[in-house]
Amino acid sequence: MELLKQRIMKDGHVKPGNIIKVDSFLNHQMDIELMNEIGKEFAHLFADQPITKILTIEASGIGIAAIAAQHFGNVPVVFAKKTKSKNLDGELYISQVESFTRNTVFDIQVSKKFITEDDCVLILDDFLARGKALLGLIDIVNQSGAKFAGCGIVIEKGWQDGGEVLRKKGVRLESLAIIDKADETGFTFRN
Amino acid sequence: MELLKQRIMKDGHVKPGNIIKVDSFLNHQMDIELMNEIGKEFAHLFADQPITKILTIEASGIGIAAIAAQHFGNVPVVFAKKTKSKNLDGELYISQVESFTRNTVFDIQVSKKFITEDDCVLILDDFLARGKALLGLIDIVNQSGAKFAGCGIVIEKGWQDGGEVLRKKGVRLESLAIIDKADETGFTFRN
Repeated sequence: MELLKQRIMKDGHVKPGNIIKVDSFLNHQMDIELMNEIGKEFAHLFADQPITKILTIEASGIGIAAIAAQHFGNVPVVFAKKTKSKNLDGELYISQVESFTRNTVFDIQVSKKFITEDDCVLILDDFLARGKALLGLIDIVNQSGAKFAGCGIVIEKGWQDGGEVLRKKGVRLESLAIIDKADETGFTFRN
Repeated sequence: MELLKQRIMKDGHVKPGNIIKVDSFLNHQMDIELMNEIGKEFAHLFADQPITKILTIEASGIGIAAIAAQHFGNVPVVFAKKTKSKNLDGELYISQVESFTRNTVFDIQVSKKFITEDDCVLILDDFLARGKALLGLIDIVNQSGAKFAGCGIVIEKGWQDGGEVLRKKGVRLESLAIIDKADETGFTFRN
């Protein structure tokens, strides 16, 4: 997605440890117009799928998914929760996820009420690195018996193995920008 | 907001401990059409303020704020972060918040780049109970020197003291539904 790549080049930064900072428009401050262009692009890419529900994970995925859902006929958005809360009860789908940025392992949880075998689920998230969060979300879709339409990712870190792992599993993965290299000289995108 | 009250009566539940469950449309699964009506209502209520930025806190506030921002001329949304992450660096506004649902105290953090004294900030969140999260967000706006337009809340728990505390401080607080009582017989709204 050309507009996104341009924005990453303009406002993105690289921090030591290959940390890509896009906090001015994607995952701390959100540019709502850009979010809508991203949502339109996901809707275009998955136009062949009868999506009934968008699944994401708190926190940064929520804004992207909510805006994108408007371009899928206002389908409901479900966000997996990372912590056990008093607000979460009843029957749950649970999967375990390893976090790269936080150096922890945690359960992600979705109430069984909100994804059923009648659904066709699209998973959306902001970043794909090692793919652990996506694998957890896919596991939850599989537990539910719903049809799994694929994953839409805003930025894929091409030098980490998540994309390869998922594609080898046959997962339909649409990343709007794949960054193959990020260093002090800038960003190199995969074509 | 009549539509919201009707939806709470139709799909909301009360759990022991006065836990209000609105997870089917607000804070686990999100009804995107309802979110847009909520966003329109906030825009109507704060039409007299030259809002330049919406501030919320992860996680449930993010979807509400992102959709609402579209009704404020696509102003950027900033979400305060609850955990220290490798993605968060540079100068930060920090405030301390006590969580009722999670029984913890934690820092919330916002990068100083994203709120400045030139901004007019509207704070949005899904719930108001004891008001601790809002007080932390207001503290951050005050630290920034920005103009503080007020707080828009989807559901206020009228039997907890957050609303009273904030109104006594002179905070402009617009709650779309104030629930004064919630038990097995249903919901009682403040007029």
